[in-house]
Amino acid sequence: MSGVATHGAKASRPASGPVSLRDSPHARLYPLAFDEAEITGGMWGERREVNRRRLLPGAVGHLESSGNFDNLRAAAGQGSEPFRGPVFMDSDVYKWLEAVGWELGRHPDPELADQADRAIALIATAQQEDGYLNSYYQVNRPGEPFSNLAQDHELYCAGHLIQAAVAHSRALGDDRLVEIAERFVELIDATFRVAGRPGTPGHPEVETALVELYRLTGRRRHLELAAYFIDQRGHRLLGPGHYGPSYYQDHVPVREAREVTGHAVRALYLAAGVTDLYLETGEPALMDVMQAQWEDMVGGKTYLTGGLGAHHRDEAFGDRYELPPDRCYGETCAAIASIMWNWRMLLATGEGAFADLLERTLYNAFLVGLSCDGEAFAYVNPLQVREDHRDPVERGARRQPWYRVACCPPNVMRLLASLEYYLATADEGGVQLHQYAPGRLASDCPQAGRVALQIDTEYPWQGQVAVRVSDSPSAPWELALRIPGWSPSAELTVNGESVAVEQRAGYVTLRRAWRPGDEVILALDMTPRVLTPHPRIDAVRGCAALERGPLVYCIEQADLAAGVSVDDVRLDAAAPITEQPISDPVPGSVALRAGAVHDPAPRDPGAWPYLATNVVGPDGSSPAEPSPMSLTAIPYAFWGNRTPGPMRVWIPLAE
Amino acid sequence: MSGVATHGAKASRPASGPVSLRDSPHARLYPLAFDEAEITGGMWGERREVNRRRLLPGAVGHLESSGNFDNLRAAAGQGSEPFRGPVFMDSDVYKWLEAVGWELGRHPDPELADQADRAIALIATAQQEDGYLNSYYQVNRPGEPFSNLAQDHELYCAGHLIQAAVAHSRALGDDRLVEIAERFVELIDATFRVAGRPGTPGHPEVETALVELYRLTGRRRHLELAAYFIDQRGHRLLGPGHYGPSYYQDHVPVREAREVTGHAVRALYLAAGVTDLYLETGEPALMDVMQAQWEDMVGGKTYLTGGLGAHHRDEAFGDRYELPPDRCYGETCAAIASIMWNWRMLLATGEGAFADLLERTLYNAFLVGLSCDGEAFAYVNPLQVREDHRDPVERGARRQPWYRVACCPPNVMRLLASLEYYLATADEGGVQLHQYAPGRLASDCPQAGRVALQIDTEYPWQGQVAVRVSDSPSAPWELALRIPGWSPSAELTVNGESVAVEQRAGYVTLRRAWRPGDEVILALDMTPRVLTPHPRIDAVRGCAALERGPLVYCIEQADLAAGVSVDDVRLDAAAPITEQPISDPVPGSVALRAGAVHDPAPRDPGAWPYLATNVVGPDGSSPAEPSPMSLTAIPYAFWGNRTPGPMRVWIPLAE
Repeated sequence: MSGVATHGAKASRPASGPVSLRDSPHARLYPLAFDEAEITGGMWGERREVNRRRLLPGAVGHLESSGNFDNLRAAAGQGSEPFRGPVFMDSDVYKWLEAVGWELGRHPDPELADQADRAIALIATAQQEDGYLNSYYQVNRPGEPFSNLAQDHELYCAGHLIQAAVAHSRALGDDRLVEIAERFVELIDATFRVAGRPGTPGHPEVETALVELYRLTGRRRHLELAAYFIDQRGHRLLGPGHYGPSYYQDHVPVREAREVTGHAVRALYLAAGVTDLYLETGEPALMDVMQAQWEDMVGGKTYLTGGLGAHHRDEAFGDRYELPPDRCYGETCAAIASIMWNWRMLLATGEGAFADLLERTLYNAFLVGLSCDGEAFAYVNPLQVREDHRDPVERGARRQPWYRVACCPPNVMRLLASLEYYLATADEGGVQLHQYAPGRLASDCPQAGRVALQIDTEYPWQGQVAVRVSDSPSAPWELALRIPGWSPSAELTVNGESVAVEQRAGYVTLRRAWRPGDEVILALDMTPRVLTPHPRIDAVRGCAALERGPLVYCIEQADLAAGVSVDDVRLDAAAPITEQPISDPVPGSVALRAGAVHDPAPRDPGAWPYLATNVVGPDGSSPAEPSPMSLTAIPYAFWGNRTPGPMRVWIPLAE
Repeated sequence: MSGVATHGAKASRPASGPVSLRDSPHARLYPLAFDEAEITGGMWGERREVNRRRLLPGAVGHLESSGNFDNLRAAAGQGSEPFRGPVFMDSDVYKWLEAVGWELGRHPDPELADQADRAIALIATAQQEDGYLNSYYQVNRPGEPFSNLAQDHELYCAGHLIQAAVAHSRALGDDRLVEIAERFVELIDATFRVAGRPGTPGHPEVETALVELYRLTGRRRHLELAAYFIDQRGHRLLGPGHYGPSYYQDHVPVREAREVTGHAVRALYLAAGVTDLYLETGEPALMDVMQAQWEDMVGGKTYLTGGLGAHHRDEAFGDRYELPPDRCYGETCAAIASIMWNWRMLLATGEGAFADLLERTLYNAFLVGLSCDGEAFAYVNPLQVREDHRDPVERGARRQPWYRVACCPPNVMRLLASLEYYLATADEGGVQLHQYAPGRLASDCPQAGRVALQIDTEYPWQGQVAVRVSDSPSAPWELALRIPGWSPSAELTVNGESVAVEQRAGYVTLRRAWRPGDEVILALDMTPRVLTPHPRIDAVRGCAALERGPLVYCIEQADLAAGVSVDDVRLDAAAPITEQPISDPVPGSVALRAGAVHDPAPRDPGAWPYLATNVVGPDGSSPAEPSPMSLTAIPYAFWGNRTPGPMRVWIPLAE
């Protein structure tokens, strides 16, 4: 399917989706080949239909009205409009094109293909003779390329151009964007690596893209350019900027950076690139810092939802355990970047913890980023919005059809369009299932032969996953199924017979000579869970949260009786939690019912809110005694789809 | 003392300090006359000595090296240096001059006077023929005055120029700055009010200054210009900016604004100006919104320290009850602005609640802004800094000698230099003492005659305040003493005889025919207090704080044993709290000793920090059982003066 298989790559494995480890010597697992993973329904099938039918066509109008296309036209000499929007406007076009590429590879669509053709032709025309391509600089600052690496985003845009090119090449065999991208990359390479000019991108992204361009083309200098930028980072070449060099992860050399710091999306795109470099070079120092950063992130800088970024000011990680639910930034793009990084860490290590975090992020911090009706996107994703909040967009309480800084919407589109590539992998011995969705998977096992599987499940609403073998070689091979870390137990049958669940690194592995028609049924434990936070996470002390399966739940004002504020509810963690099918906002989903008390806050609005209880005693101004109530919690990802209003994931505990 | 008493003011009362209500018909209380309030020692006496000996002379070097003076020289045509620093650089010079004015009025100092003379001469030379004066615009954008009201700060700088002029006029009888200020104000008045040009300052400050200029000069058009800018605000003339119009308090007309919103310093300087306008006009709508805003602020947007501003991003108030201790912005300037506003509200109403909040802010959110040695200033004042924090300056964990945005240091100087004017007032019937410090106070009571008092106290370390009558008319008059809201009880004697404490609006009032030598002794209840927060203040749920007298306390890493993290301490609120004199960091101060337990957190740094306790039970990874310990808490204002390190005001409670 790849149109550039002739570039010299030793095609030991078939090309895949966004990450294609055809010759990566340090991978433990390999993505399935392009066209050999399919999602056929379920919740993700529905979201992908929304993407195909609504988001991708609708984005054309936004890119037109926001000026993204006009900027490229101006760069191409086709118009005289002044440049509009932030410096990285081109990247929105590229992300949309990447999504369209994956989608067209699956579903031919003449109208969408025509729109993509026109965009590609426009990009080709806008590109300079010397290969340079960035409409902001071409229109507003001609002759000054790469003059402000810290802020300019030219290399960031180049990264997204490359990723769009990869999609069109792998999914459609269309190398027009690859040619454009390689011409630009040649200029970048000559300007920096070949010339030995110091510099690294202010916003990482090109690193992971360059490694993928190497994987696509086999041209090693793309890998060397990625390594160059990674080597250059951490030497404070970018200057202090507004927030200090750690904002750009430029405060310490990459091989010494053991913490995730600064702007979350920057940190995670960089981590994806560093992990990609490790997959190709196997340099232990790179995996060592990636493991350390991942533990730093997971242990004290990740929200329950998988969301990342505790600061609005610099869209950045906070200190360890600084995880305010209300001021959680949790940018949708950071969730996507985390999914990208975790996928690469999984491929490098084979350890289920990375698939666990990927799943958590996908079902919560990412899924929340798109409204149920597909009309609007969230940029910021807090875990709490108070009664009487101000600034609903900044609070995350109202999704928007588009944004002036529109990084998130097309990022949602490209992940949805390529989601099937995150479900399963293969290795020498067999196939590994990481995420569960109804679909079909296939792989040519090197030691055995062709394997094909059909997955039936109502995941995430039900915990049962049926895996039917639809094709198998006669030789034995291994089927590995992830047991999510959230599932305290699991049951497994093969053709109706119970099998002991022996986990290793988060997977149960069944090795046998499979026959077509064999059926494995995995039953995960969907018991609703009550989560308590680490005692150092100050911001949610005395609270608990609810989860079921991969989903984090929240309470929303829309489910509370009139006169009961979401801010006055206290969870009775000892009361039973029951499951309840609901149809609003999402048909077929499951709510949780929990015991609680309504404890109305003192209502004197002007009174000093701190009470010296040891000398004056309680003030007794509470308007009512706490009263028992029943509480409905819905999946966090679906909040804000009914009457916009307050919400919280962490619920204070009743005393 | 005022050199402009001839300008037509009906001098019914003598001029005072920064707020001089000589003819304000709607005041309830009146500041004491200039030179009739004195602080003679104690904690504030020491801070004022530091101000006089170190801060004021030292500022000259900072203003020189940072470019403030050079900018004015460039505007004056005396140099060719490019403009340096932010657009409001001139205001730092004016705030320093204001402080120097008050200080020179008390303590002649030829060297400081010479420095002020040179600065005033430079300002006079920099002023344009037409009265315009702003070095940024004169150097960088000549011919474009008032072209960007939202961001330009020209009117903000004018406000500080006026306040410096007021100080030099009242304290020194020197009207050179008044002449400069009035020339500039005439230009502003002609440009906006007279011409009917829409506009209001992006950063309020000139409003309160213009009212004071009216009080100084009696020229009513200054009051009318203040009213004009206040009337213009709230009609979205400033545009959305980065943070929306509420950032500038421009989202709703002033007379409809019942909440404090947006940038805290802007909101509070504006409130001071609106209250000033009320004091002159008596317009009920103004006092109505001021009361509503004050209750909104106090009830859910003020930190225990009196600190204000919950957001770093926009240096702004958060939603109601959004009061994170770690990300508290609590800018030192916001504390100063709150003190200014509360003082005016007290003058307008006579209610002790305003003096209470002024005191809390003064002893905590303001006092913390200057290091004990006088070498460095805090800009941001959080209530918590974690172990292993990053960015100590942004975290407030390290004060700086000066800042690129240096609004806070000279603001500290001008408040310290004029602090005696915030201690006491007079009205028709007598004298009111609001803040307690060793000193001398005097007033000519309209109904009685000359009153003079001497105050002896070791406040805030001891609760006893001795007020000796040193001069008194023969007719009866009223001595009112504030009983702070934090004191659950108080004892009072007059000449050794116990007197019943009957409070009204926070004051006990003693009316009698006083004789020289009469002595009133007020004993406030200094019992250490354990504070619990309103249940909706999520960020400190399950915690308590300690207070004694007007001081909020904190625990600091420097007082903990090796191996005990400030983040692992739990307060035993039932254990007795004892007082302990300490000499470090401040001689003569009082620490508190409280019962606590050390509860080391689980230490697996890479483990997922949320535990499903209902399905898996506790993880038992805690390295040790909780162990009893004794805890030392020091006044919050003094933290960060020893080894810089973690700190917290709100301490989690032991279970």
